Amino acid sequence: MTLRGRKKGETVPQGVVVRLPVYFRYLTELESAGAERISSAQLGEALDFTAAQIRSDLSYFGSFGQQGYGYNVADLLDQVKQILGIKRDYSIVLVGAGNLGKAIGSYEWFRDEGFHIKAIFDVDPHLIGNHHAGCVIRHLDDLAIYLAENPADIGIIATPKAAGQSVCDLLVEGGVGSIWNFSPTQLTVPNGVIVEDIHLTDSLLRLAFRVNEQTRAQEEC
Amino acid sequence: MTLRGRKKGETVPQGVVVRLPVYFRYLTELESAGAERISSAQLGEALDFTAAQIRSDLSYFGSFGQQGYGYNVADLLDQVKQILGIKRDYSIVLVGAGNLGKAIGSYEWFRDEGFHIKAIFDVDPHLIGNHHAGCVIRHLDDLAIYLAENPADIGIIATPKAAGQSVCDLLVEGGVGSIWNFSPTQLTVPNGVIVEDIHLTDSLLRLAFRVNEQTRAQEEC
Repeated sequence: MTLRGRKKGETVPQGVVVRLPVYFRYLTELESAGAERISSAQLGEALDFTAAQIRSDLSYFGSFGQQGYGYNVADLLDQVKQILGIKRDYSIVLVGAGNLGKAIGSYEWFRDEGFHIKAIFDVDPHLIGNHHAGCVIRHLDDLAIYLAENPADIGIIATPKAAGQSVCDLLVEGGVGSIWNFSPTQLTVPNGVIVEDIHLTDSLLRLAFRVNEQTRAQEEC
Repeated sequence: MTLRGRKKGETVPQGVVVRLPVYFRYLTELESAGAERISSAQLGEALDFTAAQIRSDLSYFGSFGQQGYGYNVADLLDQVKQILGIKRDYSIVLVGAGNLGKAIGSYEWFRDEGFHIKAIFDVDPHLIGNHHAGCVIRHLDDLAIYLAENPADIGIIATPKAAGQSVCDLLVEGGVGSIWNFSPTQLTVPNGVIVEDIHLTDSLLRLAFRVNEQTRAQEEC
């Protein structure tokens, strides 16, 4: 794939990376609703970005829009998917089959977009052998052997905090290059291994902060 | 509470808000490990922020550190908690008692830090009447009456996408001013209502993007 408009080796700014999934979600909804085209001004209004911001983001990957017409929704969505790298399949192993792991495993959207959970691991003897999301739950002790035979693109860590780093080490030793981490711990990984964290506590703390900002602002009025 | 160093009505930049929970997590770990003091250089190295960034963030709320000594860990954590607004209790209602809702309800950290889930709601007749996280699961039809008698600070939405907006409307009508949203939908709320989203799909898409960035970079080498 060639990304038009980008120089070789040029990395995409973090702000663009954060906004890409937002484009993806909205364009998916537009396409499902049968919309055929949208202007950057309309996109901007719907997503609360400026039209200039949107044109700048998308032009980063090449020029898609047409003056006076805007963007073809299906084409733009296709391009956004290509940029995001979801026009391919990903093999995933999930470690942790508690409530959170089960919730992740049941999320149909992942499968629909090519993210396939191939195996689930846990240490709880009550869970081993059970089925979830089309997989049998295996013992964590079998992870290394499994990965040797079945390479995985992404490892999901949905364990308690105490197990997060050791599970991460097992995944990395097994050749997994990308970690989606739900355990509330800061993982240490070798260079080149990608970690994307979901820190529930951080999100709740940001919410609390904003509640208090609002309370303070009201008190100051 | 007075926030030293901030002008009346001044809002805190988004970047600082995002970093505050990171300080909170790390300082909590330091305190548990028995550390008494830390320099801004050490904090910076541990968190991958520059020392200047850290001094700037913290000075935003007043000056805490002492030249040549650094920060007292307990004092700094206490100040960060105060800034974050978690030196108080929050009453929470949780809507959605599926795997994700159960995972959120079981998260002990929330309770330890003053976030108390007081009631859980769902529409699944198999779940109504069951107990989880010390609460009986009630029918969503009872949410309005419950909130009229038991005001809540935060509403957590852990429902499927289709129910997200209608549950949000019920919470807002019931006087809930802050929403922690796990449903994969963009909520519309009246001015003044705070929404903090956990978009699992966005996070996974960012991971996929980074995997592909890496692949492209390797191909270009």
